[in-house]
Amino acid sequence: MKIEDIKNIYDKLQEYDDKEICINGWVKSVRASKDFGFIDFTDGTCFKSAQIVFSKLDNFEQIAKLNAGSTIICKGKVKLTPQNKQPFEIVASDISVFCATDSEYPLQKKRHSVEFLREIAYLRPRANLFQAVFRIRSVAAMAIHEYFQGKGYLYVNTPLITTTDCEGSDQMFKVTTLNFNNLLKDKDGNVDMKQDLFGKQAYITGSGQLHGEAFALAFNKIYTFGPTFRTENSNTKTHANEFWMIEPEIAFCDLDGLMDIEEDMLKFIVKYVLEKCKQELEFLNTFVSNGLLDKLNKLLSSNFTRIDHKDVIDILKKADVKWEFEPVYGGDIAKEHEKYITEYFNGPVFVKNWPKDIKAYYMKLNEDGQTVAAVDLEVPGAGELMGGSQREENYDKILKRCKEMNVDTKAIDWYLNLRKFGSCIHSGFGMGFERLVMYLTGVENIRDVIPFPRTPQNCLY
Amino acid sequence: MKIEDIKNIYDKLQEYDDKEICINGWVKSVRASKDFGFIDFTDGTCFKSAQIVFSKLDNFEQIAKLNAGSTIICKGKVKLTPQNKQPFEIVASDISVFCATDSEYPLQKKRHSVEFLREIAYLRPRANLFQAVFRIRSVAAMAIHEYFQGKGYLYVNTPLITTTDCEGSDQMFKVTTLNFNNLLKDKDGNVDMKQDLFGKQAYITGSGQLHGEAFALAFNKIYTFGPTFRTENSNTKTHANEFWMIEPEIAFCDLDGLMDIEEDMLKFIVKYVLEKCKQELEFLNTFVSNGLLDKLNKLLSSNFTRIDHKDVIDILKKADVKWEFEPVYGGDIAKEHEKYITEYFNGPVFVKNWPKDIKAYYMKLNEDGQTVAAVDLEVPGAGELMGGSQREENYDKILKRCKEMNVDTKAIDWYLNLRKFGSCIHSGFGMGFERLVMYLTGVENIRDVIPFPRTPQNCLY
Repeated sequence: MKIEDIKNIYDKLQEYDDKEICINGWVKSVRASKDFGFIDFTDGTCFKSAQIVFSKLDNFEQIAKLNAGSTIICKGKVKLTPQNKQPFEIVASDISVFCATDSEYPLQKKRHSVEFLREIAYLRPRANLFQAVFRIRSVAAMAIHEYFQGKGYLYVNTPLITTTDCEGSDQMFKVTTLNFNNLLKDKDGNVDMKQDLFGKQAYITGSGQLHGEAFALAFNKIYTFGPTFRTENSNTKTHANEFWMIEPEIAFCDLDGLMDIEEDMLKFIVKYVLEKCKQELEFLNTFVSNGLLDKLNKLLSSNFTRIDHKDVIDILKKADVKWEFEPVYGGDIAKEHEKYITEYFNGPVFVKNWPKDIKAYYMKLNEDGQTVAAVDLEVPGAGELMGGSQREENYDKILKRCKEMNVDTKAIDWYLNLRKFGSCIHSGFGMGFERLVMYLTGVENIRDVIPFPRTPQNCLY
Repeated sequence: MKIEDIKNIYDKLQEYDDKEICINGWVKSVRASKDFGFIDFTDGTCFKSAQIVFSKLDNFEQIAKLNAGSTIICKGKVKLTPQNKQPFEIVASDISVFCATDSEYPLQKKRHSVEFLREIAYLRPRANLFQAVFRIRSVAAMAIHEYFQGKGYLYVNTPLITTTDCEGSDQMFKVTTLNFNNLLKDKDGNVDMKQDLFGKQAYITGSGQLHGEAFALAFNKIYTFGPTFRTENSNTKTHANEFWMIEPEIAFCDLDGLMDIEEDMLKFIVKYVLEKCKQELEFLNTFVSNGLLDKLNKLLSSNFTRIDHKDVIDILKKADVKWEFEPVYGGDIAKEHEKYITEYFNGPVFVKNWPKDIKAYYMKLNEDGQTVAAVDLEVPGAGELMGGSQREENYDKILKRCKEMNVDTKAIDWYLNLRKFGSCIHSGFGMGFERLVMYLTGVENIRDVIPFPRTPQNCLY
C-alpha cells in the first residue's frame, strides 16, 4: 500500500476525506484511557503533526505505552474534523511498531533547553524549534536561488580550497594531506610544503568574491552560494567557524545600483518565506520571538534609508546616549550604534561611503580620496546583514591601494589583471546566510540555525 | 540612460524595434572597412552575441582598431533584421571605450586549446566553450533545487568540517590552524592536537550522507548540495580533489523506491536543461560532442533497466569480448564493463544487489547474507553517474557489519544510535555534480566543467 505524506493530506483535505491510507512516521506523544487513545504523530513532511485515534486494536496495550520517538506504520481512514482545532484525524485500523524507543531516548515530551539540544545535534531536528528553523532555512535558500536565477544571474561554484583569498590567510584554515608527526623539512629547516598534495600551502576559503569578479566580467551578473570559513577564536552568539555566504557580483553596476539590488532581494526573500512558512513563523512568533511577524511584514513596506557614514556619526554624536564606544568619524560602527541608527530611521539603513582606512583594498576610492564606495546594510533587530562595495576597476589605483595597505600583489596578480583585460565598473556584496536565517526566525544564537555548528573547541558529529 | 541586457533584446525583439538603447559590454571582434564596421559584441547576459554596426563616428579609427576583450559603452538604435542570420543589429550613434586591451590580452580571436585555457582559468569563462558549460552548470543546479524543493525535500547544509566521515579519514584533507613550523608535542611525543582550534584533528568532508540521514529521520525527505573533497592523488579526466555532490536521503523508502527517484530526477534535469539551454547545447553538439542532443533526447524516453550485479557478470562473461579486466562475481565493474552493459541494454542501467565485501558497512544486508541493497546507475557515454543504497536500519546488524569491516564505532556512535531512536527503512544516493555536467555537456575532462579546478599539484587562483 502506498505511503501517504501528512503534508499531502493537509494540502488536499477534501481528496482524502474517508480515504483508507497508510502512513509511516514517528510518535510525538500518546494519550490513552482504558480502550481509547490518541497519538500525536509526525512523518516529518510538514511542520504540523497529525492526530491518530485508536481503539480496538489487538496490540492496544503496546500502542498505548509507546514512547516519544517510536516509529510506527499505521493504516486507517482519514476523517475530516472541521469543528476541531486540527482539520482531520486518522482513525487507525492497524498500527504496527517498527522501532520502539525507551526511556534512554533523549527527546522526551517536555521543553528541553537549547543548550541541551545542541549536545544532541543529530536528534534536535526533531524538536519543534528546529523543525521550524531548518524548514525556513531550506525555503530561504530556495528563495535566493529563485531570485537570482529569475533575474539571469549565473550561479558560480567558486573554489573552497584556494591559495588566494580576499580576507587574508591569517583568518584561514590550512588544508593539508601531510602527516603532522612526520613532516619533512626543506633546506632552510622549514616544513617542505612541496610534499603536500597541491605542492604548496593551501587554505579553505573565507570568500568567493575574487573568483566571483572574474566570472562577473564574463557573465555580467553572477552569484555564489556556498560555505566559507574563518578561524576566529571567538565564542559569541553571532560567530561560527563555518557558515554559508551568498556573494553576488554585478558588472556595469555602481554603488547605487548595488543598494537597489540588496533591497529588492531582501524584500523578495522575506515575502517568499512569509508566504511559504506560515506555520513555522507563527510558532516562532509565539514561542521564540514576539513581534517577529510584525517585523517581517513591516520590512516589506519599509523605505531603506541611504546615508553616508559621516552623517551617521553626526547623528550618533548628537544623540543623547551614553555610548560604550564613542562614535568616531574615521572608525567602525559598534553594535549599539547599529541598533540606534535603525531605530532612529525606524527601518533598514544603508550606511555608505566609509573611511578608506578601515575597509579593504579592492573597494573603489571615492573622489574625495578619503572614503570608499562601500555600503553596509543594517536591519532592525539583527544589525549588519550585508556588506558590499563598488570595486576599484582602475589598475593603477588598485595597485596603489595594495601598496598602501601592504597587500601581497603577487598572490593576486590574476585578480589585478582583471583591471587590464576588459575592466568595467562593477559591484558586489556578501550576505551571511546564517545572519539572514537568524533575522527570519528571530533565533538569537547562530548555533541554533546551523545543522551541525562549528565553533572553537566544538566540532562534534 | 538605462543599460539594456542583450538577453532582453533577444527575448522581446518586437519591443525593441527601432528603440534607442545603451549597452555596456565587451568586443569579441571588429571587422571594419574604410568608413563602415561591425563589432561582434557580448555583455555576458546570454550565450549569443549581438552585432553592432558603426560608421560615421568621431572616433571611427579608434573603434575600428579595438582588440578582443575591450570594454565599450555603446548608444544606438535596435534594427530588426529578420532576413539575416542574427535577428537584429544595433546601429551605433556613439561608442566610447572604457578599457582597451592590447596584444597582451591572452584571449585573441582564434581557437585556443583547452589546455591553454586551463592555465588562464580567470579569463576562460569568456570563451564560447565555457560560456556554454558554465551556463549549463548553473541551470542544472537550479533544476536540482527545483526538483527536490517541488517534491517537499528539505535542503540541508551538512557540515564541511567534520570529525566523522563515511569515506574514511585516509581519504580526507586535514584542516588546522596550527603552525607547521612550530608544533607542540604531547607527552607521548605526538603533535598535541588539543592546541588546534577545535581541540582535535578535524577534516573537510568527503560526504554529507551520515549527517543527511539524521535529518531524513526528522524531515522525511532531504537533500544536500555542496562541496566535497577527496585527497586521491590521481590525475585522470574524471577525478578532482574538490567537487560538488547532491546527496538525497529518503525515509520509508527502499531500494526500488530509490531507483524510481533517481530515474525521475535525471529525466527532470535533462528535460529542464534541454528547454533552457538550447543555444548552448547546439553549440556543444556541433563543436564538442557530436550526438549530444540525440543522447539527451533519447534518455527522456529510455526505460532504465534494473538488473542484479551477478546477472551483469553473467552477461559480461558470455560476451564475445576480450576484457582487459576479467569480470568477477565478487568484484567491481570496470569502465569497459560499464560501457558494454549500457550498450547491451541500449540505455541507462541500474546495477543492484552488489557483493557485500566491496561495499560500505552502512548498506543494508540482503537476506542472502552475501549481497547488499546497493545500486549504481550507469548511463551511456558517462558510466557511473549515481551510487546509492538502502541503509542498514537494524542496530545489531549494522554493529556486526562495522566489526567485520573494522569500522571505528566510537567515532560514529551518534550515527549508529539513529538505529535505536526511531529507526526506519531509508535509502539515499549520491550524484557527483561534475559527472552530471560532463554528461549534459559532452565535455570529457572534469577540469573543464569546474570554475577553478583543484587536482594534485594544481591549486592556482
